[in-house]
Amino acid sequence: MRTSNLLLATTRETPSDAVVASHQLMIRAGMIRSLAGGLYNWLPMGLRVLRKVEAIVREEMNRAGAQELLMPVVQPMELWEESGRDEDMGQEMLRFTDRHDRPFVLGPTHEEIITDLVRREIRSYKQLPANFYQVQTKFRDERRPRFGVMRSREFIMKDAYSFHLSQESLQETYDTMFEAYNRIFSRIGFEYRPVQADTGAIGGEGSHEFHVLADSGEDDIAICKESGYAANVELAEAVAPGKPRAEANELLEKVATPNQHSIEEVSDYLQVKRKKTVKTMLVKGATEEQPVIALVVRGDHELNELKAEKHPLVATPFTLATDEEIQAAAGCNAGSIGPVGLQIPVLVDRTAAASADFICGANEDGYHYKGANWERDAQISEIVDLRNVVKGDPSPCGQGKLEIFKGIEVGHIFQLGNKYSKALNATVQDENSRSQVLEMGCYGIGVTRVVAAAIEQNYDDRGIIWPDAIAPFQVCIVPMQMHKSPRVAEAAQALYDDLMAKGIDVLLDDRPERPGVMFSDMDLIGIPHRIVIGERGLDNGMIEYKYRRDEKAQDIAQAEFMDFLLAQLKN
Amino acid sequence: MRTSNLLLATTRETPSDAVVASHQLMIRAGMIRSLAGGLYNWLPMGLRVLRKVEAIVREEMNRAGAQELLMPVVQPMELWEESGRDEDMGQEMLRFTDRHDRPFVLGPTHEEIITDLVRREIRSYKQLPANFYQVQTKFRDERRPRFGVMRSREFIMKDAYSFHLSQESLQETYDTMFEAYNRIFSRIGFEYRPVQADTGAIGGEGSHEFHVLADSGEDDIAICKESGYAANVELAEAVAPGKPRAEANELLEKVATPNQHSIEEVSDYLQVKRKKTVKTMLVKGATEEQPVIALVVRGDHELNELKAEKHPLVATPFTLATDEEIQAAAGCNAGSIGPVGLQIPVLVDRTAAASADFICGANEDGYHYKGANWERDAQISEIVDLRNVVKGDPSPCGQGKLEIFKGIEVGHIFQLGNKYSKALNATVQDENSRSQVLEMGCYGIGVTRVVAAAIEQNYDDRGIIWPDAIAPFQVCIVPMQMHKSPRVAEAAQALYDDLMAKGIDVLLDDRPERPGVMFSDMDLIGIPHRIVIGERGLDNGMIEYKYRRDEKAQDIAQAEFMDFLLAQLKN
Repeated sequence: MRTSNLLLATTRETPSDAVVASHQLMIRAGMIRSLAGGLYNWLPMGLRVLRKVEAIVREEMNRAGAQELLMPVVQPMELWEESGRDEDMGQEMLRFTDRHDRPFVLGPTHEEIITDLVRREIRSYKQLPANFYQVQTKFRDERRPRFGVMRSREFIMKDAYSFHLSQESLQETYDTMFEAYNRIFSRIGFEYRPVQADTGAIGGEGSHEFHVLADSGEDDIAICKESGYAANVELAEAVAPGKPRAEANELLEKVATPNQHSIEEVSDYLQVKRKKTVKTMLVKGATEEQPVIALVVRGDHELNELKAEKHPLVATPFTLATDEEIQAAAGCNAGSIGPVGLQIPVLVDRTAAASADFICGANEDGYHYKGANWERDAQISEIVDLRNVVKGDPSPCGQGKLEIFKGIEVGHIFQLGNKYSKALNATVQDENSRSQVLEMGCYGIGVTRVVAAAIEQNYDDRGIIWPDAIAPFQVCIVPMQMHKSPRVAEAAQALYDDLMAKGIDVLLDDRPERPGVMFSDMDLIGIPHRIVIGERGLDNGMIEYKYRRDEKAQDIAQAEFMDFLLAQLKN
Repeated sequence: MRTSNLLLATTRETPSDAVVASHQLMIRAGMIRSLAGGLYNWLPMGLRVLRKVEAIVREEMNRAGAQELLMPVVQPMELWEESGRDEDMGQEMLRFTDRHDRPFVLGPTHEEIITDLVRREIRSYKQLPANFYQVQTKFRDERRPRFGVMRSREFIMKDAYSFHLSQESLQETYDTMFEAYNRIFSRIGFEYRPVQADTGAIGGEGSHEFHVLADSGEDDIAICKESGYAANVELAEAVAPGKPRAEANELLEKVATPNQHSIEEVSDYLQVKRKKTVKTMLVKGATEEQPVIALVVRGDHELNELKAEKHPLVATPFTLATDEEIQAAAGCNAGSIGPVGLQIPVLVDRTAAASADFICGANEDGYHYKGANWERDAQISEIVDLRNVVKGDPSPCGQGKLEIFKGIEVGHIFQLGNKYSKALNATVQDENSRSQVLEMGCYGIGVTRVVAAAIEQNYDDRGIIWPDAIAPFQVCIVPMQMHKSPRVAEAAQALYDDLMAKGIDVLLDDRPERPGVMFSDMDLIGIPHRIVIGERGLDNGMIEYKYRRDEKAQDIAQAEFMDFLLAQLKN
């Protein structure tokens, strides 16, 4: 391709709503343009990247034995009513009626559609397992679309759905897809981690998210470098401290803490570290017999609501007790609750349970206890994992310490079990001619988001640095003054033809622009390999080469140039 | 691919709403499944065909210098208000509001979006001409979606839009696209014709439709085999008869035609051929001075409203005169109007103007004239082309006679001029730094419809007969009893591996089915080249080959088989 045949829409302007690097750089490099909130035009330069991502995804899906099909963007509402998800989806699912007043939605995902298709087309266990995927436009009417194509309303997903007679078969395909996802993200060139994940509203059992590590990520990932263990912070187990609880040394003493409510206020006021305190929260219980439950974590830790609501005594969804309930159970306001003397179940986090001589609320407004100790002063109903892990925690794998990284979720695989197949009555005849509800898995990749994530992980102050596998062009040729020098034009053209013939994606910058403009455009667009051809080089039989990440260019002898370049492209 | 890894959803059932062959066969061959009215799932087998069509379209668009981009499916209503088309589109354009009550539409086409993009991104004549295309999902809320993917509500189009400083540049790109369209439809293997077309509601000047000739087509195409001339019947010029008007032989005679109103009734009653009569219609005029105009065509011809409304005296849109207006102008009801004695302008079709001794209404209920003659009895204000051409008419090219074929429109190219660029104020600086409104062309191909059209032109009572270029698989291997014969299994596998290695799209039917089931499935799906491997053949060193269109299979010596097959694939 030549720049003269390409809409090269580079710009120095950064729109004011573009706060993350990928959004800014996709606009500046002429990859995308906003049409309306959360809706983007993909310009030719950006679409080249998107198509390369799609191609890698397709190759690996096909290799994993998934079959491509294509389901409509517009979906009849009745299938969402049948699955019962019409209400769960809330306003994110865009609804409308057609000219005959029949209700439809813009597909935010396709579980209902594929399950409906499969229940009609797959009748026998002999057709199983089956795994279908599509690369299709989705729409989610985000309340606040942001970060460009990272969280847009209209986006492209690869979504796959597998169907099985047994959990074992589902696990097998799940493992195959897990490997396929690893291959996809490795081929793209990501630094990423598959992390254990919560299955959230979609339900089901096993689930992994694939996160690209980048400072701008919205998710916190706990990683153990020693073992490769990785989990969403919300899900990572906070293991019990290695050391047993220290002996009680202090006596229980009530101290005045006037107007000090939060852990920060109390620990500052008493001039102790936060880890010397414990934080007690009252939440709604799961049963009428025990309507209020106390949860205790160390003052420097955060309660993990997902973990709490998994405890059988705690109500789902997680709900804080009301002020009235707190008064009735503890006789004080929320800022002064403590475990001493509470007559309700007290669930204590593993680390908090190892504290001794700690500070806690005195269940009396304006007072806290110092020197509190478990068993002697306060009773523990049960020790459980209640908190988010933090940096330095021992890893649950037992091999090292956890670090916390920011991640961008680019893929998610789920074992759905029979959630949808049961709701939609998708059954097959098994070997004994008995009707059996299908087991189901689903597997998504945010194709458009992958493009933005690749930038978040690969840019500098000059622009994007595409990984070779998804670069819009692998190589650019920048001829110096080719409109004045026939010799330069000829050499550039010859090299261009040669590279094209070798199947290399090359961009020839044939604009009559100054070298500085061409260099900064090519750097901004982020083409990994740059070749400069000029009179001076040709005089010395040299061609200039620069890798986008390198500081300096190198002069390579013309005779050896092609071998050199091909070696660079292989790396 | 093996059938065991593929959703082979062939069925004997034909849905009751499937009236055309392509719709029936796409269901029966497991290419598509209906999700809701006018919404289809593309199953793996059908999607393979669709992707091959897309690939051919993309290759030829790129070759023609068009750049691919991607615009959203969801479009803000405000751009449609700006172009003024929001009302024109009527209920076919599906409208809705997002969660913030902002109005959007599901894109039925993308002129507004691309023009908005171009007015922001292209500022200088140096960036022109530019030609952008996309392959994208569209939605038109057809009142009565029908014929499967031939006229569905959600469909895939390739739409291209070109921008120019001058009409000459537009014409040049239009010609390039005309050639690209010819290459696309030739490569697909269509019998098709580019036909001169009306530009309809979209406006503008030059326009061609590309029609696949098939009996089930909804359009009538006039074709001259001698010259290759082709035009939509609505647009084809009906030239004047070669012979001059005959002399008047009869005297004008008023005859009673009680209760005979239509041409059919009158000619039957008077026992003359319809071509001996003329048909006179009164329509609204374009001016207040001449509020009613008479139009006359021969009794066996059809008035062409598009041609009529292009005449300056006739109102646009074409509107019949009311009963009152007819009474006032002719003194009778609509069934008895004739040109004799009319005091309003009388526009006479070229062929009707060549009639002599004709029959026409007498402007008196219950009476017609026999032996009427122009000039002597009735005055002609102007002779014009007013009728649809019919089979046997001389071709306007002057080289032969017209034949009428049915066509399926699969492509349409338009010279839009400045219709959209003016409405949206899309301008560039020309060489003299003057702002100039862009000239624009647009070029569409109904990608999903192409698949259906290919079937309408290529099927028999056993199923589809895909043209090689878009067949889901080029070749199928049907092994006889491979589950019982290791020798057959081995030979089939070896041939399969060999063909795959050669990059040939081959389907190995590895189901444990009876030969008859496998043959009829492969015929129904329409794979062009069938290879049968069985014990008996192997005993004789033979492999069976059959081309889908052939009646009989041929036995080919194993040693020569690959060369033979490759030669067949080249044809």
